[in-house]
Amino acid sequence: MVLSPYQQLEQEFRRLHAFRGALSLLRWDAAVMMPRGSADVRGEQLAALETEHHALLTTPKVARLLERAEAGASQLDDWPLANLREMRRQRDHAIATPPSLIARLAKATARAEVFWVEARKANDFKLLAPHLEEVVRLVRDKAALLGQARGLPPYDALVDVFTPGISTADIDTIFKALSRKLPGLIHAAIDVQAQREPLPFRAKFTVARQRALAVEVLKALGFPFDRGRLDESEHPFTEGVPGDIRVTTRFDATDPFTGLLGAVHETGHAMYDLGLPAEWRDQPVGRDRGLALEESQSLLFEMNLCRSRAFVQYLRPLLEKHLQVAGPEWTDENLYRHLVRVRRSLIRMDADELTYPVHIMLRYELERKILDGDLPIAELPEAWNASLDQRLGLRPGNDVEGCLQDIHWAVGHFGYFPSYALGAVIAGQLNEALRAARPGLDAEIASGQFAGVMEWLRDNVHGVGARLPVKDLVQEATGKPLTAAAYLRYLEAKYLAAP
Amino acid sequence: MVLSPYQQLEQEFRRLHAFRGALSLLRWDAAVMMPRGSADVRGEQLAALETEHHALLTTPKVARLLERAEAGASQLDDWPLANLREMRRQRDHAIATPPSLIARLAKATARAEVFWVEARKANDFKLLAPHLEEVVRLVRDKAALLGQARGLPPYDALVDVFTPGISTADIDTIFKALSRKLPGLIHAAIDVQAQREPLPFRAKFTVARQRALAVEVLKALGFPFDRGRLDESEHPFTEGVPGDIRVTTRFDATDPFTGLLGAVHETGHAMYDLGLPAEWRDQPVGRDRGLALEESQSLLFEMNLCRSRAFVQYLRPLLEKHLQVAGPEWTDENLYRHLVRVRRSLIRMDADELTYPVHIMLRYELERKILDGDLPIAELPEAWNASLDQRLGLRPGNDVEGCLQDIHWAVGHFGYFPSYALGAVIAGQLNEALRAARPGLDAEIASGQFAGVMEWLRDNVHGVGARLPVKDLVQEATGKPLTAAAYLRYLEAKYLAAP
Repeated sequence: MVLSPYQQLEQEFRRLHAFRGALSLLRWDAAVMMPRGSADVRGEQLAALETEHHALLTTPKVARLLERAEAGASQLDDWPLANLREMRRQRDHAIATPPSLIARLAKATARAEVFWVEARKANDFKLLAPHLEEVVRLVRDKAALLGQARGLPPYDALVDVFTPGISTADIDTIFKALSRKLPGLIHAAIDVQAQREPLPFRAKFTVARQRALAVEVLKALGFPFDRGRLDESEHPFTEGVPGDIRVTTRFDATDPFTGLLGAVHETGHAMYDLGLPAEWRDQPVGRDRGLALEESQSLLFEMNLCRSRAFVQYLRPLLEKHLQVAGPEWTDENLYRHLVRVRRSLIRMDADELTYPVHIMLRYELERKILDGDLPIAELPEAWNASLDQRLGLRPGNDVEGCLQDIHWAVGHFGYFPSYALGAVIAGQLNEALRAARPGLDAEIASGQFAGVMEWLRDNVHGVGARLPVKDLVQEATGKPLTAAAYLRYLEAKYLAAP
Repeated sequence: MVLSPYQQLEQEFRRLHAFRGALSLLRWDAAVMMPRGSADVRGEQLAALETEHHALLTTPKVARLLERAEAGASQLDDWPLANLREMRRQRDHAIATPPSLIARLAKATARAEVFWVEARKANDFKLLAPHLEEVVRLVRDKAALLGQARGLPPYDALVDVFTPGISTADIDTIFKALSRKLPGLIHAAIDVQAQREPLPFRAKFTVARQRALAVEVLKALGFPFDRGRLDESEHPFTEGVPGDIRVTTRFDATDPFTGLLGAVHETGHAMYDLGLPAEWRDQPVGRDRGLALEESQSLLFEMNLCRSRAFVQYLRPLLEKHLQVAGPEWTDENLYRHLVRVRRSLIRMDADELTYPVHIMLRYELERKILDGDLPIAELPEAWNASLDQRLGLRPGNDVEGCLQDIHWAVGHFGYFPSYALGAVIAGQLNEALRAARPGLDAEIASGQFAGVMEWLRDNVHGVGARLPVKDLVQEATGKPLTAAAYLRYLEAKYLAAP
């Protein structure tokens, strides 16, 4: 049987999918299981497979097949057509980042990562600065090449890698709306909460007990333990492919929510991946729709569904069962206070739902200036501190609490940060549509029933895969264009409610 | 800088080494960590990486480079020359097994494996027979192609894949010597032991305690837990590459030796891999010298060094410490009786040191007849039972206890079994040379000092890598040609000693 050019492309991308799965397992193992001294060996394996993946994607054969398939695209149905578009996207990204640039970036970011660690130890940004400058130079080259390949301005091209179809103009519009509302909202929420400080937890909880609690909750959410795992790592993450999906969390002996909600957050990612269209699972169109959509799913679970009074109703008996706790700090009301507590803080990773987007907008502002050449690296610490002061009324006492807190820029991730806040905005809009479609949602959550949520998400988000650009996907799922409106309504209702 | 053809080959094989490491991790994970439902996904990943590995090894580029490097081989030193020879060997093996044959074998063995499980459930060899016939047909094709490529008779070519440089004539000579001595030795050992039945262990031991015991013993042996792991799996195995080596064992709640000696056996493999020449670690000449040598290392540790009175002296206090045992069954004498107990048994996996080679010789006899067409598959069960009866005076009551006990043939492993017994023979000869070089060895073992053993093995076995053929390696390490003599001396001394 003679295969059409498009069918031959499907075969090529099936093989690439298997490579991606293998790479994902190598990364998972490195973070969860690998002995500490084996990093060099693993680095060689990852580099060899990534190089081969890149080589397979950029062969002349694939280029020829793409051209021939595109010439016959009018014969293709909706899904294959979208698949072909995503194949082209992946291949253009790969061609635009030649192996020589990838190798230089790999070397520069490996060095910058080492000096990021050193700079944090010494609490001195100057140790990192020259290495960060080199990374920025190379990221500018990459952005220019990607921009040419995709017909986009350089920064937009970086964003496009992580969240396809979102432009700088889209981000500016959304962030402007957030900037207008959030400062007042944060101020008001802190006022409202001043009279209801939560009682602290005093007990200690073993990992075994916390794990059993997390497993029960994840099972209720639908996480399939016969095709997935829950493990521990320094930072929670999700790796794997549908069919073998692995989430991690980090348990804190004194706070039962850290480990549980870390696992719930990652399960949001995992359920998205598991709900992707099964018949396209080894093709580009069967993948998730980028980082902002991924983050919308993890945040929908963690923030919108689980940091809620309904979820506390479901959770409290489980806390009693697994952690054997009792006392005034374990009432529904006190637990809820813990879950929604708002505090201005210097560190993004510790930030609550309301102040988190402020941290993101600061990074977006600064990384655009850095790439445009409007902010010399040497001036980054002061620019950071000034921006945070202006946005939250806080000034970091040192670089570790300031511009040295995130590893992203050192490892070359520019255009990545906006997706965190965009994810929250999308989650807010999906949450509103979901609740309109399921008026009894709070009762479902309170009784630990998540099948209905999953069905709605599968129909409206997960099952779409990468068939639509982000904005079209949100429009179809919610019936409205993507804006910050629903998200801000949600935040106001949650944080300004009377006690 | 222009690289020579040989140097370019080194680059190619460096990449192949990284692929092998990744494949090894995928297999380790499948046996130790993978959720049960993820086997299909993993199968796709393994197939994709194996196919790519095969493709990279068989490119015209590699063929051209090999020819050019071989033309200039007189310029090469000892190690690069041996490396070039091993590159050629690997490439000839790969070329001789074309992807179409590999694919058919993969399909046939996958099916046969399923029906092996079914046949065992139903205790009916006839369910497996037609599928095993298909596997045998394909293995014959493979053996013919490999034989042509390497200038060897077909069965010799299969053995050569697992244990390079050992011929059928070598095996026949060694197995003849074993056949002459072992039956009488087994009979005599059982007589000697009749008066000293060990007292049974009565306690139960948690996995956590047994694991702590195994970890302490493995540390004494030199296993590097910063570049390796010990985990549990259904059958013990070793996977990984030097730099990230992973052993597994299986703990039995009622018998503390199963888990411990399983881990010690695998640590023999691991220490071999770790002792391979570091400067050649990503090249063919830096690999182990095949299965028989691998098995000689695991058996040297388990049988020659650790199933000994000296090891019991070291172990007994550790049993008391970790398992908190006391009583008459925990004396040195009783522990030693457990370690060397000889019993005729139907199952190879349960066999002791003395009867194990008999099981192997039976399989060697039968698999040669099967491949030569002298034994129709339908007649295998009866041939098996008759051979075991003649060799051990035992008759299996059914196929599960007979020819259905091993999975090897169903998955296409012919020419593999002899390496188990050859490994024991080599271990016996190495043991004699090691003891001659270190007259105080028993005292070292009794005090848990294994550094001297490791040094000797590194100098004489591990550090040789694949520079020499098996027989030359043994000759250089022991000063004598490979024969069964030392092994038989060792067995007689151990099993015929007065109480």
